[in-house]
Amino acid sequence: MKFIHLSTDENIATIVLNRPKVNAINEIVVEELGDCFQKLATDQNVKAVILTGEGSFFSFGLDVPEFLGYSKDSFTEFLIKFTDLYSYIFQFPKPVVAALNGHTIAGGCMLALACDYRLMVSEKAKISLNEITFGSTVFHGSVQMLKYCIGERSAESVLYGGSMYSAEEAKGLGLIDEVVSKDNLREVAEKVAQNFAGKDSRAFRDIKMLLRKHVAEEMRRREHDSILEFADIWYSESTREKLKKIKIRD
Amino acid sequence: MKFIHLSTDENIATIVLNRPKVNAINEIVVEELGDCFQKLATDQNVKAVILTGEGSFFSFGLDVPEFLGYSKDSFTEFLIKFTDLYSYIFQFPKPVVAALNGHTIAGGCMLALACDYRLMVSEKAKISLNEITFGSTVFHGSVQMLKYCIGERSAESVLYGGSMYSAEEAKGLGLIDEVVSKDNLREVAEKVAQNFAGKDSRAFRDIKMLLRKHVAEEMRRREHDSILEFADIWYSESTREKLKKIKIRD
Amino acid sequence: MKFIHLSTDENIATIVLNRPKVNAINEIVVEELGDCFQKLATDQNVKAVILTGEGSFFSFGLDVPEFLGYSKDSFTEFLIKFTDLYSYIFQFPKPVVAALNGHTIAGGCMLALACDYRLMVSEKAKISLNEITFGSTVFHGSVQMLKYCIGERSAESVLYGGSMYSAEEAKGLGLIDEVVSKDNLREVAEKVAQNFAGKDSRAFRDIKMLLRKHVAEEMRRREHDSILEFADIWYSESTREKLKKIKIRD
Repeated sequence: MKFIHLSTDENIATIVLNRPKVNAINEIVVEELGDCFQKLATDQNVKAVILTGEGSFFSFGLDVPEFLGYSKDSFTEFLIKFTDLYSYIFQFPKPVVAALNGHTIAGGCMLALACDYRLMVSEKAKISLNEITFGSTVFHGSVQMLKYCIGERSAESVLYGGSMYSAEEAKGLGLIDEVVSKDNLREVAEKVAQNFAGKDSRAFRDIKMLLRKHVAEEMRRREHDSILEFADIWYSESTREKLKKIKIRD
Repeated sequence: MKFIHLSTDENIATIVLNRPKVNAINEIVVEELGDCFQKLATDQNVKAVILTGEGSFFSFGLDVPEFLGYSKDSFTEFLIKFTDLYSYIFQFPKPVVAALNGHTIAGGCMLALACDYRLMVSEKAKISLNEITFGSTVFHGSVQMLKYCIGERSAESVLYGGSMYSAEEAKGLGLIDEVVSKDNLREVAEKVAQNFAGKDSRAFRDIKMLLRKHVAEEMRRREHDSILEFADIWYSESTREKLKKIKIRD
Repeated sequence: MKFIHLSTDENIATIVLNRPKVNAINEIVVEELGDCFQKLATDQNVKAVILTGEGSFFSFGLDVPEFLGYSKDSFTEFLIKFTDLYSYIFQFPKPVVAALNGHTIAGGCMLALACDYRLMVSEKAKISLNEITFGSTVFHGSVQMLKYCIGERSAESVLYGGSMYSAEEAKGLGLIDEVVSKDNLREVAEKVAQNFAGKDSRAFRDIKMLLRKHVAEEMRRREHDSILEFADIWYSESTREKLKKIKIRD
C-alpha cells in the first residue's frame, strides 16, 4: 500500500495514514483504507483496531487541489466511495479507536466520527468540520454521525460555526473522548484498544449494532441525494472560487 | 401590519412583535408573522433575520382569553396555522436569531425554539413551556423542536414540570444559547446575525436542511393528530375552568 | 402475590419488589409486576406510582441460575414477557417514580429506565448495564430507553464499558435524576410522586405520549429480532460458561 501502513501486535491492528505532509484524502487513500478494514474484519486474530496518522495532521480532509482537476462525474463517484468508507467504519464489527495525532479537519473529522472512541493530542491540534467556511456543505451521513456523537444542538453549532476546536474544547463538546499528550498517544490508544479487545467479541458486535444500526439506516436513506447536492455546490462558481484558494502546505 | 414591525438594516431584517402589553399571539399576529417571513425568504438583500419583541414580554403565548370565545372548529383552524408557522420558521432557508427581550412563555417559547440561535435578557424574564400547569398539552411538532434543542431527557423535565426558568437556568438546559443584559440585546443580536450573514448562503441553507429536514418530517407526520387532541383537551371541562382563570395583564 | 407488595396511600400506589435477597427477576416477578401495573392503570384513585425494592438490591436483574435450567424456547418466551413489561411501564399512562433502594443491575436497570423519574440511594449501591462483562448482549428496546434517557453517546459508553456506577456518577450521566440518603428515600419518593399526582392527569398522559410514543414505536419495531439474537448468544458455549459463574448471594 502506498499511503497506509498496517501492522498487528498481538490482537491489536494499527492503521497509520501516511501521505505527507497532511494526510490529505484522495482516491488511493480511500481504497487502501477500505482494503485494510475489509481485511481486518475477517482476521480472527484481530480484536480491535487503532486508526492514526503520521505527522502533525491526522488528516487535512479531502485533497481539494487534486479534486479541482476532476470532472463533476468523477468527483461524484469518489464521494460515493468516501461516504461508503465512513459508513463501513461506523458499522465495523470490531472496536475502532481513533488516535488523533494532529489536526483533524473536514473529511478527516468524518473518519474520526465513525470510530468507537476518540483520543486526541493536547498540543496545537485542532478538530473541525469547517466546510461552511469555504462555501461547502457536508454529507447527510456525516451529519447523522455527528448528531449521534454530540447531540443535535451541538451538531448545529459545530456545522453552523465551522470553528476550529482545541482538544479540550472538543472534549467539552463530546467530539472526542479523551485528551492525551502527544508522547502518550500510542500507549494510551493501545490500552483503550486492549480494553475493548478484552470484551466478548460477539456481545460487543451485537451491542454496537443495536446502538448504530438505526443511525446507519438513516445515513443510507439520504446519502446519495446529499452527495449530488454536495457536488452541485462544489461546482458552483462562488464555492469553486473559494476552493481554489485552499492550499495544502507541503 | 398591525402588530408586527419589520425593518431592514443592510442585510439584516428585524421583526418586532408589538401587541401590547404581552405580545399575546392571535390570528392576526400569526398571519402577519407568516407574511413577514415569506417576504424575507425571497428578498435577495436579506441574509439573516432577528425576531424580537417590544416590552417586558417576548410573548405570553396564545391569547387565551380571546380564544375562549372561539368555537372548537375555528380554534382548530387557528392551531393549524400556528403550527404551520413554527414549522416554516424551523425550516426557514436563512438564519433566524431570536432576541428574547422578556418573558417567553408557551406558544412564545415554541416560536423561539424554531429559530437558529436564542439570546435572552438576564433580568427578570422567564422562559417556560408551562402548558401542564393549566391542564393543557402541547403539540407534537413543538415536542420535536424541544427534543432537537435540548435532548429527550431534558425535554421531559421541561414539559412534565412546566417550570419557569431564568435565562441562566435556560442556558444550563440548552433552551437558550446566550444570556445578555437588556441594554445589549439588540447590539449582540445584530452581531450574531451579521456573523450568520457572513456565511455562504447556499452552504448554510443546505447544512440547515441536513440538520433539520429529518426533524421537520417527523413534526409533520403527527402534527395534525396532536392538534385534534390538543383541542379536545382545551374544550374539556376541567381544562376550560383553568383556562378561564388565566388573565392577561394590560 | 408472592414477590410483590402493593399498597396505596391516598392517591399514590407503591410497588415493592420483595424476592430475597436480591430481587432477582423470574417469570413470577414479571407476571406479578404486570398484574400490578395493569390494575393501577384503571384505578381512578391512583394518580402516581412508586416502584421500589426491599433490601440492599433494587434488583440484581434476571435470575441467571434459574434461567440456566430453561430450554431456549421457554427462555425466549420469558424474554418476550419481560420486554413487554418494560415497554408497558415506559408508556404507562400515569407517572412512575423509581425509588432505587440499592443495586440496580442489568434487567433491574431496564425496569428503572422505563420510569419517569429515578431516585437512588447515596450509599454503596451501584447501577449498571453490565451485560457485556458476562458475554451477553441487551435488547433493542432497552437500548432505545437508554438513548432516550442519557443520549446516544453516553448510551454507547455505558453499554461498551459495562461499568458499575455510583449514584453520583449515574446522576452525572443522567441515568438517575436525584441522589438521596437511604433514610430519606421513601419520603422524597412520595414528595416527587405527589408532585406528579398534582398535575392534570390527562395533560400529563398526553404529554408523556408525545414524548415517548415515537420511542416506543422504534422499541417495538425490532424488539423481537433482538430477543432471538439475545437468546442465541445466551445459548452459545462461551457465554454459557460465563453465565454459569454468576452466583446469586443469599
